[in-house]
Amino acid sequence: MTTVGILGGGQLARMMALSGAPLGLRFLVLDTVGDACAGQFAPMVVGDYTDQSALAEFAARVDVATFDFENVPAESAQWLTARVPVFPNPRALATAQDRLAEKTLFREQGIPVPPFAAIDTREQLQAAVAEIGTPCILKTRRLGYDGKGQFRIKSPDDVDAAWGALGAQAAKVGLILEGFVAFQRELSVIAVRGRDGEFRAWPLTENWHVDGVLSASLAPAQVDDALRDTALAHARRLAEALDYVGVFALELFCRDGELLANEMAPRVHNSGHWTIEGSETSQFQNHLRAVLGMPLGDTRMVGHACMLNWLGEMPDPEPVLREAGGHWHDYGKAPREGRKVGHATLRADSRQELAEALRRIGDALDRRAQVAPVIERLG
Amino acid sequence: MTTVGILGGGQLARMMALSGAPLGLRFLVLDTVGDACAGQFAPMVVGDYTDQSALAEFAARVDVATFDFENVPAESAQWLTARVPVFPNPRALATAQDRLAEKTLFREQGIPVPPFAAIDTREQLQAAVAEIGTPCILKTRRLGYDGKGQFRIKSPDDVDAAWGALGAQAAKVGLILEGFVAFQRELSVIAVRGRDGEFRAWPLTENWHVDGVLSASLAPAQVDDALRDTALAHARRLAEALDYVGVFALELFCRDGELLANEMAPRVHNSGHWTIEGSETSQFQNHLRAVLGMPLGDTRMVGHACMLNWLGEMPDPEPVLREAGGHWHDYGKAPREGRKVGHATLRADSRQELAEALRRIGDALDRRAQVAPVIERLG
Ligand SMILES: Nc1ncnc2c1ncn2[C@@H]1O[C@H](COP(=O)(O)OP(=O)(O)O)[C@@H](O)[C@H]1O
Ligand SMILES: Nc1ncnc2c1ncn2[C@@H]1O[C@H](COP(=O)(O)OP(=O)(O)O)[C@@H](O)[C@H]1O
Ligand SMILES: [Mg+2]
Ligand SMILES: [Mg+2]
Repeated sequence: MTTVGILGGGQLARMMALSGAPLGLRFLVLDTVGDACAGQFAPMVVGDYTDQSALAEFAARVDVATFDFENVPAESAQWLTARVPVFPNPRALATAQDRLAEKTLFREQGIPVPPFAAIDTREQLQAAVAEIGTPCILKTRRLGYDGKGQFRIKSPDDVDAAWGALGAQAAKVGLILEGFVAFQRELSVIAVRGRDGEFRAWPLTENWHVDGVLSASLAPAQVDDALRDTALAHARRLAEALDYVGVFALELFCRDGELLANEMAPRVHNSGHWTIEGSETSQFQNHLRAVLGMPLGDTRMVGHACMLNWLGEMPDPEPVLREAGGHWHDYGKAPREGRKVGHATLRADSRQELAEALRRIGDALDRRAQVAPVIERLG
Repeated sequence: MTTVGILGGGQLARMMALSGAPLGLRFLVLDTVGDACAGQFAPMVVGDYTDQSALAEFAARVDVATFDFENVPAESAQWLTARVPVFPNPRALATAQDRLAEKTLFREQGIPVPPFAAIDTREQLQAAVAEIGTPCILKTRRLGYDGKGQFRIKSPDDVDAAWGALGAQAAKVGLILEGFVAFQRELSVIAVRGRDGEFRAWPLTENWHVDGVLSASLAPAQVDDALRDTALAHARRLAEALDYVGVFALELFCRDGELLANEMAPRVHNSGHWTIEGSETSQFQNHLRAVLGMPLGDTRMVGHACMLNWLGEMPDPEPVLREAGGHWHDYGKAPREGRKVGHATLRADSRQELAEALRRIGDALDRRAQVAPVIERLG
């Protein structure tokens, strides 16, 4: 009997447990709150990620540990590593936690990135804005997610406002200034690397964000083979550089046929949720297979899939459940403004059928704006 | 928040909970033993199915009740019905629990059955064997499963041995004598009926039993359209006659192009496990959708699927996990002689690819006999 420990008990841990159960696995989830939604399907240890007694209990009860939440302190991951195998390794985690370390690694690996600069003071910010030009984005180096901890600088006049908003974070989590990329598309590579170094990737996914939060994903993204090969090569190089084990996402901007890396997520990723129904093997099961040293599952997809995120509260499930290719995912969370509470995946054999299903759902749920860019892309 | 209560906590309840989690459902399982495998992913009440205090606790905590185990006493189901909606209804359950009631209903509904007779005494057995002819099978009317509670009578000389083996059961669970059907194939219809009467069926499944226990299933079964339509019409008529809600299986013998009904299972069924990966909607999720009055999911299948049952102990998972279409299901049970501990589903786009995968798996696991009839059928 193998027990997989998951640091973090959100929807990613929940879906991991559900997809790992058929492998005969047991799970134990560590989360700071007792009502974390993964706890509905897996036993929990409740405690802070820095709480040594919680970590010790967790370590004693699991055979291997992994993450649902990438911002577990690197020291905690390191501490665990002395007691139990931890995948991805703490160095990979630490790199992905820090936008500066991450972008520096991308650059070292020959993966193009937008211009960026580390920012410690208001003066550095002013100089970097002049150097990089506007528009640009000031971001916290660590602990940002879903567009939080970001300030968009449209003109040099915004420097004071930006510093006012995020300056206090410089000493705490660090800041980075990035050039704004006027991309035509956002793409992500969802990939998995096994303990033995085997690498597999799902078809590329195109993503739409609203206010910095993922709104919709479409797979396979319509891109030419050369672009796809470049994206996959970037992901593979990165995984190898980090000796990464498990699933990860590489977020890319595509501007005028060129790819620029935005960030990597050292875990299963929201833009890979469509793999549950849209691929022979889901990202969740492949993550577990990788972490446990099992053979990786096939990542080919079946037809076309679109994932729609539900934020704040769950909509009426009926219109989705009435669609032949409609799949519902309610994370069992209490509603809360902006919170990721669930998603739907629509699967279809053709792009046209997918567009039609999305149109019906957008109409029925009065969410035309959410489905519109996907329908437009489907042509 | 909706909690579904499941009477019985085996692999069927386990897979039901795993497939219902995405619908945002919670589960509560009632089982006689605390280590029932569904308990690894759902909270439990431990108690006998006739224990009123266990039933009362269960009823108080659930919004709707259903079954993983069809031999829950009809009185318990009836008792629950006064407190909480129960699907399928207790009459359907009671009918399916009793081979005599079941076959009588089949006949009433114009569904052909092998000759049969109720047996209360040794004299009736002797007369019925003379009437029906040999070979024939003496079965317990109630509580039989996986070929248990059956005696095959090859010649009239076996009457004493048959009565010696099962005669004592006549007063307890009743006996039935059935003509033995020299079938060429066994088929099952897995179907679902909603609360509103909507009926859907998955493609027909062909099944192979060894010693009365399911060994392998193949879908879609290669049958002509007329046969398939007849099978589906039988299933639909039956469901309507019972006002059935949820998933059920109708087991059929196919002899010389004619269909004879063997039995129905008033629950999700082992021969429908392939629907987890092989169909747009699994039998487990559709059962829950039906029971909760949600729209039914699409039952179309994608490609070809074969399910192999694992009895006694789990084989090495590697050969299955290495197959592109290989999916592993370990129920998390302790090994025990003859026990259903897991299954594998192989999915492929063509019959030939499926046959090749089965050959590799049969070789790698030294289970050539298990895969041989399926490979032969695939041609
Ligand atoms: N440099 C940039 N240029 C253009 N858009 C950006 C840039 N950085 C972030 N964004 C937009 O904001 C979204 C969220 O920012 P990201 O850096 O990925 O942070 P998070 O960790 O919150 O996902 C991106 O997916 C993209 O839509
Ligand atoms: N009348 C019959 N003729 C031929 N084979 C039978 C007959 N009854 C049962 N069998 C064989 O035994 C298997 C199990 O019997 P069944 O009546 O379905 O009981 P169970 O409830 O154990 O599934 C069947 O699937 C079939 O292979
Ligand atoms: Mg991002
Ligand atoms: Mg049977």
